[in-house]
Amino acid sequence: MERTQVGIIGAGPAGLVLAARLAAAGIDSVVLECRSRRYVEGRVRAGVLEAATVALLGELGVDARLREQGLVHDGVHLQWRGERHRIDFTGLTGSQVTVYGQQEMVCDLIADRLAAGRDLRFEAEVVDADGALGALPGRADGGVVLRYRDAAGAAHELACDVVAGCDGFHGIARRLVPPSALDVYDRGYPYAWLGILADVAPSTDELIYAFHERGFAMHSMRSPTVSRLYLQVDPDEDLAAWPDERIWEELQIRLGVPGWTLTTGPVRDKGITPMRSYVAEPMRHGRLLLAGDAAHIVPPTGAKGLNLAVADVKVLGDALADWYATGSPAGLDAYSSRCLARVWRVQDFSTWMTTLLHVDPKGDPWDRRLQRSRQDEIVRSRALATNLAENYVGLPLP
Amino acid sequence: MERTQVGIIGAGPAGLVLAARLAAAGIDSVVLECRSRRYVEGRVRAGVLEAATVALLGELGVDARLREQGLVHDGVHLQWRGERHRIDFTGLTGSQVTVYGQQEMVCDLIADRLAAGRDLRFEAEVVDADGALGALPGRADGGVVLRYRDAAGAAHELACDVVAGCDGFHGIARRLVPPSALDVYDRGYPYAWLGILADVAPSTDELIYAFHERGFAMHSMRSPTVSRLYLQVDPDEDLAAWPDERIWEELQIRLGVPGWTLTTGPVRDKGITPMRSYVAEPMRHGRLLLAGDAAHIVPPTGAKGLNLAVADVKVLGDALADWYATGSPAGLDAYSSRCLARVWRVQDFSTWMTTLLHVDPKGDPWDRRLQRSRQDEIVRSRALATNLAENYVGLPLP
Repeated sequence: MERTQVGIIGAGPAGLVLAARLAAAGIDSVVLECRSRRYVEGRVRAGVLEAATVALLGELGVDARLREQGLVHDGVHLQWRGERHRIDFTGLTGSQVTVYGQQEMVCDLIADRLAAGRDLRFEAEVVDADGALGALPGRADGGVVLRYRDAAGAAHELACDVVAGCDGFHGIARRLVPPSALDVYDRGYPYAWLGILADVAPSTDELIYAFHERGFAMHSMRSPTVSRLYLQVDPDEDLAAWPDERIWEELQIRLGVPGWTLTTGPVRDKGITPMRSYVAEPMRHGRLLLAGDAAHIVPPTGAKGLNLAVADVKVLGDALADWYATGSPAGLDAYSSRCLARVWRVQDFSTWMTTLLHVDPKGDPWDRRLQRSRQDEIVRSRALATNLAENYVGLPLP
Repeated sequence: MERTQVGIIGAGPAGLVLAARLAAAGIDSVVLECRSRRYVEGRVRAGVLEAATVALLGELGVDARLREQGLVHDGVHLQWRGERHRIDFTGLTGSQVTVYGQQEMVCDLIADRLAAGRDLRFEAEVVDADGALGALPGRADGGVVLRYRDAAGAAHELACDVVAGCDGFHGIARRLVPPSALDVYDRGYPYAWLGILADVAPSTDELIYAFHERGFAMHSMRSPTVSRLYLQVDPDEDLAAWPDERIWEELQIRLGVPGWTLTTGPVRDKGITPMRSYVAEPMRHGRLLLAGDAAHIVPPTGAKGLNLAVADVKVLGDALADWYATGSPAGLDAYSSRCLARVWRVQDFSTWMTTLLHVDPKGDPWDRRLQRSRQDEIVRSRALATNLAENYVGLPLP
């Protein structure tokens, strides 16, 4: 049977960063990704990297294109009642964020891994895991077997010491844990985001998060020629009801301030993303370690999902390196609680940003008054703006 | 018929501070209080004064005893999971609060008014108002008549230019406004405070706000020999189920940290206070101006109710002085909106402090996790602690 040290399920940011980090520590891993390379590299997702994420990619030597093409942002615009308010990240925290598409980062990590001749298998769908998954052995023993199918449908087995579940919210990894061993926290929101990717230069230098009585809107970007914009819509909204022209009109209304015009352009991609908060605890079941969306989902308003996944695998990579080097399970034992402190902080921040900026269609007038007062308080209080900025640019890695 | 310029309903902090401020501006007023002097002076209520409240009492010349007996506090202790965390008001904001019982402040204001020979009538119960209450006249005309009954039941009339409704949440003033002219926001909480006043030296130098899994607890004080303590209980809790001994035991459990002991003593006063958030908008109906609890209630966790009332009457006193001096109604026209910006800020802060520190018996585990993360964030982030301190010591008067 084929044998590796760490079996990694999923070639998204979490799985690929973990694989790169393990490689740097001389630990062998195999990445099994159920989708094709083309699909994974084209998947449009997040686009705001915390400084700690950028630094980690630098340590891993996969930041050449990121340094060249990433857009360093010193702040962000928050907007309500027709006024824009800049949150000056650099002035308030000394830190910045970098705008760089998640799929670009994924392309860089894939190219780097393949160029180094390391193992990464696309269209390799894990269907089961065998062996003593729930118990961490005293030393590496190859005692857990991942069963997967290749593109042709052929069955394979891969013996590993431990398994990293980095296959996202809908992946199999979390389902390999007995439900009784997980505490699940799950919250929906009464709205979704209609997002577009458009071939047009951004109409703003920095991201705009706008609260409008018609609903939240956001102007983001992926490059100097590609804009990414979002509109709050109903969770069951029909995409067919939103021809491009209507989307641009609504964006202009919600994002508009006097003297500013949104430049429109061809829409390349369009979709509706539901909003959800989800945490499964603990993030480790014996030798199965969950990371990123496989363990937790945050609403996108705080731009945190990708960064949270990277923070998870930094902790995990350190813990595995320590386990292999010293035999001590202390790092793996602490993995879940170290990550979860950050996960809950980010859940709270993401929920706070979301409720600050969205219109709740259930429309409690009390909550609307407090929401407005909180918006005003961010403008009034440098301290509150600083706390917002600290959380947005990202807390130190655990 | 008797005649005054401003008819003030209620001899609580709002009514008495307004009366003092009007007197300083040479404006005549009559204060009508339905309760006896003894009752009003013995009523145990709030006890934390913002610096702006202290400064205003100084301007009015009624701060001699306050300066002598008030306890200036540079900070407050927040507590959870057995650890106490000090919020350093002075270091974070440059400001302090002063601990001084509301009833002491009321005694000072009453004594000052009576010593100056100014009009203050106890056991004078307003039962109705007559005349064009809803319209503010172009100039002072004595066109509204307050009807009240004295202690013997005799009916009286008092003609006023305007009426200040400072008679608290259950008073008549707000009910003089047609319901259709008010927007009402009302929220209950699934808990109440059981409060005691005890003749024992405080076991703490500064206030302690403690979150405990058994419920919130608080250690406050009124003087170096009088302690004021609170326990979160059910809204329909039976006071008879809480003999003094049980109260002290529960306080020790909830407030306890290693190496600290709560000193007990004779309980002088004991009661259960429901928690409520309430706002009636606007705060002015023609020549009737609502101030303090007559217009809004906040939960006590932020120590804001008294200070909010004083902020209201500062704005109102300025507006009335301007109206009498210049004939311009601009200040009176702006009264409600100027006050309400602060009212909603305080509602948001008080709600935030309340949910930060209480156990919600409905017990959503999601909310409990976010609550814990927010507690940790106050300890981690000097910025968030600063925003808390800013709101606690009080925002600048409008």
